[in-house]
Amino acid sequence: MQAVQWKDGILVLLDQRLLPAESIDVPCRTAEETADAIANMVVRGAPAIGVAAAFGVVLAARQCAREGLGMPAFREKCDRIRSARPTAVNLMWAVDRMLILCTPDDEKPDERLALRLEREALRIQSEDIAACRAIGRHGDALIGQNDGILTHCNAGALATAGYGTALGIIRAAHEAGKNIHVYADETRPYLQGARLTATELHEEGIPVTLLCDNMAGWLTKTGKVQKIIVGADRIAANGDTANKIGTYSLGILAQAHGIALFIAAPLSTVDFSLPDGTGIPIEMRPPEEVFHTMGVRTAPQGIEAYNPAFDVLPAAYINAIITDRGVAKPPFSASLAALRDKA
Amino acid sequence: MQAVQWKDGILVLLDQRLLPAESIDVPCRTAEETADAIANMVVRGAPAIGVAAAFGVVLAARQCAREGLGMPAFREKCDRIRSARPTAVNLMWAVDRMLILCTPDDEKPDERLALRLEREALRIQSEDIAACRAIGRHGDALIGQNDGILTHCNAGALATAGYGTALGIIRAAHEAGKNIHVYADETRPYLQGARLTATELHEEGIPVTLLCDNMAGWLTKTGKVQKIIVGADRIAANGDTANKIGTYSLGILAQAHGIALFIAAPLSTVDFSLPDGTGIPIEMRPPEEVFHTMGVRTAPQGIEAYNPAFDVLPAAYINAIITDRGVAKPPFSASLAALRDKA
Repeated sequence: MQAVQWKDGILVLLDQRLLPAESIDVPCRTAEETADAIANMVVRGAPAIGVAAAFGVVLAARQCAREGLGMPAFREKCDRIRSARPTAVNLMWAVDRMLILCTPDDEKPDERLALRLEREALRIQSEDIAACRAIGRHGDALIGQNDGILTHCNAGALATAGYGTALGIIRAAHEAGKNIHVYADETRPYLQGARLTATELHEEGIPVTLLCDNMAGWLTKTGKVQKIIVGADRIAANGDTANKIGTYSLGILAQAHGIALFIAAPLSTVDFSLPDGTGIPIEMRPPEEVFHTMGVRTAPQGIEAYNPAFDVLPAAYINAIITDRGVAKPPFSASLAALRDKA
Repeated sequence: MQAVQWKDGILVLLDQRLLPAESIDVPCRTAEETADAIANMVVRGAPAIGVAAAFGVVLAARQCAREGLGMPAFREKCDRIRSARPTAVNLMWAVDRMLILCTPDDEKPDERLALRLEREALRIQSEDIAACRAIGRHGDALIGQNDGILTHCNAGALATAGYGTALGIIRAAHEAGKNIHVYADETRPYLQGARLTATELHEEGIPVTLLCDNMAGWLTKTGKVQKIIVGADRIAANGDTANKIGTYSLGILAQAHGIALFIAAPLSTVDFSLPDGTGIPIEMRPPEEVFHTMGVRTAPQGIEAYNPAFDVLPAAYINAIITDRGVAKPPFSASLAALRDKA
């Protein structure tokens, strides 16, 4: 299962809203289709969104070349992709990295620019897989024999170009022969834990137990969980981490029970422009997502819903941030900057 | 909407698994049908289960009278009801209270005994409504103007003979003219919060916002919640409280954010035979409940699930236990016993 593929100049996204029941590819031929697919969560997971966005920039360039549009129209299309979702910094990071390739010589998007962009997007894709492998290696060193590991949402192959961040560490520990058991929060409202994480792990032969989100507290009390590992959508310079809604609760539970909590993410997830997490915009999603599960309405008509897609876990609840460039430990302001500045 | 009705000698249960989409009555004519309805969660909520069980005992007596069966067969049928679910003490309490009416003179269940039992079951039912009203009165005194109140599962009219325990307090505060806003956890896997609590409150015109269980942490951090009020399935003598899975997490969140947490339950929910919560049996329910929502499968085949129906919140996380006989404050061993011994 691959979240993002580039096939003959078309961006092919696996529709993650239907897995594991249905495995349907959504082809994107324009920047607009790419932006919509990101906004509608056809593709999700911060690194995967970044990779999809990079290819979306290539599509934007080819569209403009085809239609004879200039650089302002191209930048507008890129901006539409860049603002498809507000929280994950990888989206902005990827689009910005692509746009750096536009020089003052580029009077209008042409095939020459498109080819340069295509090579960069493919590079972002392969770098992401390499980053996940590196996160796995660094993280494996922190996993013990017989560890029970609780994870939330899906920070797996499907959330990245492949291999995964939090699940990359779990994969690496499993490949290293460690006997581990994973507990996966189902993660309402989109059930990425049930549909994606449980599926990924089961296919790899890694033992996985699914639980409803409200069972995590009692599970941590039983002593079955030694580590909590989750991904990240944006990390502030001080280590405050935005991730899927529910991560904040897990941080409180981890601290109350003396369980180590690790964030797994490529260093590109760190937004060094933000001193702390208060500056991270939290996307509020439509109430309908809370009122339904897999298309079945579960709530009465006429009420309100609270539906933040993410929350921010303060750095004080985080024991380590495991990146592709190494493991950052508290205080994170110093350790994250050191990883960034490492040769 | 009434969870439990007694109509012409038939126990009529509202099938709570289908609400609010469908409102279907399930008639129970035997002890066995009653026990199955309780085990399968047609009726749920500790006090409502107690009331249903009491009528089940009446049905058992009439069955035995009809079929010429003796007291051992009658007691066996009652025992089947009594053990339909293990955690809520109200079930055992109600059956035991009914059986006290059997005297050594009762050689076999006859219509005379059945009539005595029927009167007692009706008394349990009306006492439960009165208890909920009293809980509401006592609890209202603890609710402030403009309070945001977070609740979990359904401790409402549908969980009782009527009016509700946690929702009884909310109803009483609303009736007293207080401007309150309720936040309802959807409460997976059965979504009692979405389907029942939100429906009950909306029908009463009490403002309600629905959230997924994993959003409660971030919600409490925002300062929108001043009180957390939940029901109880069994309370140990020291105040440790078994309630719907997820209550334990709410206790940890309440303490971390300095939010008061109240338990609302009739004094009959206190099991004075248990010194603390470690003796409360926690029902583990079938994995299939976690793998599905409203009949739609959300998880892959071949994995495990963790599905405790309840957890136990230690007394240290509870600010008050609001009963029909008054409000118990810590230390609960003394205050609960005082309420029991009150004239």
